[in-house]
Amino acid sequence: MANFEGHILPGCFFILFGLWWSVKYPLKHISRTPKKNSHVQRNIKHLEIIEGAVKVFFALVGLLADQFVPNGPHLYLYSGQPHHWVKLMNWQHSTMYLFFLISGAVDIVTYSSTLMPAGLDRFMLGIALFVEGFLFKYHISQRPMLDQHIHSMLLIAIFAGVATCFLQVFVHDNMILDLFAVCLALLQGTWLWQIGFVLYPPWGGSEWDLNDHSNLMFITMCFCWHFALAIFITAVNYSLVYCYLQNCKKSHRQIMIGLGIRKEKNAHAPLINESDEE
Amino acid sequence: MANFEGHILPGCFFILFGLWWSVKYPLKHISRTPKKNSHVQRNIKHLEIIEGAVKVFFALVGLLADQFVPNGPHLYLYSGQPHHWVKLMNWQHSTMYLFFLISGAVDIVTYSSTLMPAGLDRFMLGIALFVEGFLFKYHISQRPMLDQHIHSMLLIAIFAGVATCFLQVFVHDNMILDLFAVCLALLQGTWLWQIGFVLYPPWGGSEWDLNDHSNLMFITMCFCWHFALAIFITAVNYSLVYCYLQNCKKSHRQIMIGLGIRKEKNAHAPLINESDEE
Amino acid sequence: MANFEGHILPGCFFILFGLWWSVKYPLKHISRTPKKNSHVQRNIKHLEIIEGAVKVFFALVGLLADQFVPNGPHLYLYSGQPHHWVKLMNWQHSTMYLFFLISGAVDIVTYSSTLMPAGLDRFMLGIALFVEGFLFKYHISQRPMLDQHIHSMLLIAIFAGVATCFLQVFVHDNMILDLFAVCLALLQGTWLWQIGFVLYPPWGGSEWDLNDHSNLMFITMCFCWHFALAIFITAVNYSLVYCYLQNCKKSHRQIMIGLGIRKEKNAHAPLINESDEE
Amino acid sequence: MANFEGHILPGCFFILFGLWWSVKYPLKHISRTPKKNSHVQRNIKHLEIIEGAVKVFFALVGLLADQFVPNGPHLYLYSGQPHHWVKLMNWQHSTMYLFFLISGAVDIVTYSSTLMPAGLDRFMLGIALFVEGFLFKYHISQRPMLDQHIHSMLLIAIFAGVATCFLQVFVHDNMILDLFAVCLALLQGTWLWQIGFVLYPPWGGSEWDLNDHSNLMFITMCFCWHFALAIFITAVNYSLVYCYLQNCKKSHRQIMIGLGIRKEKNAHAPLINESDEE
Repeated sequence: MANFEGHILPGCFFILFGLWWSVKYPLKHISRTPKKNSHVQRNIKHLEIIEGAVKVFFALVGLLADQFVPNGPHLYLYSGQPHHWVKLMNWQHSTMYLFFLISGAVDIVTYSSTLMPAGLDRFMLGIALFVEGFLFKYHISQRPMLDQHIHSMLLIAIFAGVATCFLQVFVHDNMILDLFAVCLALLQGTWLWQIGFVLYPPWGGSEWDLNDHSNLMFITMCFCWHFALAIFITAVNYSLVYCYLQNCKKSHRQIMIGLGIRKEKNAHAPLINESDEE
Repeated sequence: MANFEGHILPGCFFILFGLWWSVKYPLKHISRTPKKNSHVQRNIKHLEIIEGAVKVFFALVGLLADQFVPNGPHLYLYSGQPHHWVKLMNWQHSTMYLFFLISGAVDIVTYSSTLMPAGLDRFMLGIALFVEGFLFKYHISQRPMLDQHIHSMLLIAIFAGVATCFLQVFVHDNMILDLFAVCLALLQGTWLWQIGFVLYPPWGGSEWDLNDHSNLMFITMCFCWHFALAIFITAVNYSLVYCYLQNCKKSHRQIMIGLGIRKEKNAHAPLINESDEE
Repeated sequence: MANFEGHILPGCFFILFGLWWSVKYPLKHISRTPKKNSHVQRNIKHLEIIEGAVKVFFALVGLLADQFVPNGPHLYLYSGQPHHWVKLMNWQHSTMYLFFLISGAVDIVTYSSTLMPAGLDRFMLGIALFVEGFLFKYHISQRPMLDQHIHSMLLIAIFAGVATCFLQVFVHDNMILDLFAVCLALLQGTWLWQIGFVLYPPWGGSEWDLNDHSNLMFITMCFCWHFALAIFITAVNYSLVYCYLQNCKKSHRQIMIGLGIRKEKNAHAPLINESDEE
Repeated sequence: MANFEGHILPGCFFILFGLWWSVKYPLKHISRTPKKNSHVQRNIKHLEIIEGAVKVFFALVGLLADQFVPNGPHLYLYSGQPHHWVKLMNWQHSTMYLFFLISGAVDIVTYSSTLMPAGLDRFMLGIALFVEGFLFKYHISQRPMLDQHIHSMLLIAIFAGVATCFLQVFVHDNMILDLFAVCLALLQGTWLWQIGFVLYPPWGGSEWDLNDHSNLMFITMCFCWHFALAIFITAVNYSLVYCYLQNCKKSHRQIMIGLGIRKEKNAHAPLINESDEE
């Protein structure tokens, strides 16, 4: 996968998950306060299970694709004549997908039963991210300077994600950690795109000089801009969800007020006061 | 900004903020216990919003200044003929200012509404400091030994600040963390001055030998003295605020006693006892 | 012990302890909820003491074996003519065993009396693991690349164990941490086997090229597979214990229902209702 | 102070403080449970203030001694002709003592008033230890291998102490952390002795080969033995304090029973039941 598509595709997955989380977490946190949105809370549990299933599906597709692409290893690990390992890079990607698959499976089990303690899903996601970062770390030694540098930026995003997930095991439902996880998923996705565009310029773009120090300085700064973009996207989606839920509540209240007026006609009912207490 | 003023100016900002915080945090913590100073608590919230606005203003000025100084990049990032990046150092400073601008904006939103959870302002300040440290780290490679060393001391102060801010997200209103943050802001400010005086000696001062090991040992020790100074300033300001508030309370109580005496003259009012319960 | 058996034997100990913990911790956590299994809770305390005694026994055997094997140091540390240290590697292993011995002794004292605070047993285990990792770290310098790499993977497992134990001092009875400790014990055990098979191939197996980069990449990936295996074993044992306890409860309830029916014959007794409230 | 006495003397201070703490903390924790020893609790507060004063005294003596020994800097920092720093090593030691002096002063203020929050004394001790480790770290570069290694072991003990102190700011009165701090103080003290004996062998002892790898391996292992010794001393002192307090309680209870019998003679007094409720 050391090509343009090999970075764009996983980047898309992370961006998609990041965008979805940037809607899910605000929904979950904002809907918690008012009484009327408790059905949102219930639906989110179902969404978590679906999310886990989607994760399992994507991971399985990735795992099988990396094994059975035309020049893949086809489950062969070791070739006897001459002695050598078969397509280790594809096997490494398969290993990464395997752990995301386990993470997805744990998501499903955690949210569909009470067998597992809350937080196990975050812990397993942390483990999957750790394995990703761990394999990347040894993946990129013996490469040109800029290649190592641009991947080490990715490692920062990955290990920050690991730390966030492990914190979430102990600090449940902290909105700041949830939003930070969203940012990191978006950052990882857009950065994978950046890596693809820098190392494998598509559409006949000019090659980057991988040993130029000013390129390295630009890439360092560019990583910060990606992060600022991720914060911006998260903030916009948070605001949109907030406005949407406020509108919901308002229209809901208008309906309730409408109902209340009708109820006020038979004002001797003591139930009215209770229905006004939202 | 690799000159004397380029280190003195941001140093001033940090020292100003440090001094202001060394008054704000003691005010906030000492005024919490007695009932009579609850108006201080309310005012502090307004002060936080003003502080955020000041931060946004300074960051915006810095950002624009770094772009539109006579030999700045004027928003050009890449020059085609010959291929090279335009004034990357100015762009890096602009990036730092951008994150402090975001931090200021988040301060305003956090304290002026209930939209955001408490602690998000500290988290965003931590991110801004992290970006500062992150850019500095790659900024200073390929420099003489003492230059790298004196900047790595700065990085210690910066990353200690990052750690403090991230802790404050989970441990609210801990006085020790607040006072430590004050010390670190003062330390960063005075250390930026020290860097300016060592690397770009003003007023025709003699140059430092950047490769002398005894200079390096002195600078290491000097950093500890700056820290001791920061602790000293914080302690003095804490004591001054404490004495001021004690005097306030005492004079307040004397007024109350005065009022009480006058009230005691018409002692048949049952409300008096309640007003004495301070 | 720099031979095949020297890695297989301690590996067996860690695997045995890992397997035992993979039964003990699920038992402890699942049996906590229902009232009927409170006797399991009481028995677990006795099991902890026995576990401590077994640990002391194994550590003592290991300590003595490393001293008094035919080519061991026999408690001699320093030889005068010529000046040199006697069998430092055996002394290092004895030191490791000594700390596991202390850990076992602290286990016994912690669970058999109220003298010591809960968590001290985990703290001491963390210290013992730290000493193991600390000695390993300096043990393996000046070795071929793959030898260092394969041992540095072991260090990751060991120091993750240290971190987990230290967290458990402050976060008592967290099921996720307990299960993670189980995984790490299994991982350490199977990885010690892997080291034995790679560095000292038994039964006339072909030697590994210790300086081949593709071997290093395979070993990195293989470590992840060992971890996946450890997760798998832990999950299977957890499920088995869960099913077993559910069956126990069901059969217990059937007995209770049987008793209940008999009791219902003399239905005027008010005690029946209470015995149904499980 | 780069001589035998220069390591033995500070080592003695740490051992003395470690031994004193190994009595104070068990006293504090064991005496907390029974009602009768509440006077111990009150006395401990006074002891803390005295401890702070002793710390200030020792630090002041050390600071002045390092400045005004015959070949000390006598407060001169910079010599003009030729340009060089005066006795930087003495200045570094003075800086360390300065921070322990601040720590002692903060101890006194924290325990003698309610001005400062609990935990500030631990925080300041952590800062003092950090400064010690920070100065040591740059102190020992450019030395022979064993010299660096033996000091890096010391750094482990110091930074473990820093981490423990910072944890104690947030986790008050945790017996495990207190006992660990005791062990680390003893370890640091005895290890300073070890450094003195290895690097500056007294009484005509033979010199150590500072570049021999087996010496390095022995020193690594020796550090673990020092730690085991520190754990042993702490455990013994803990047990002694426990036995002493149990005896106190027993003899106290016998007195109380004796009083009780006398009181039982006039058994109509309702006060007797209350006095039995210990």
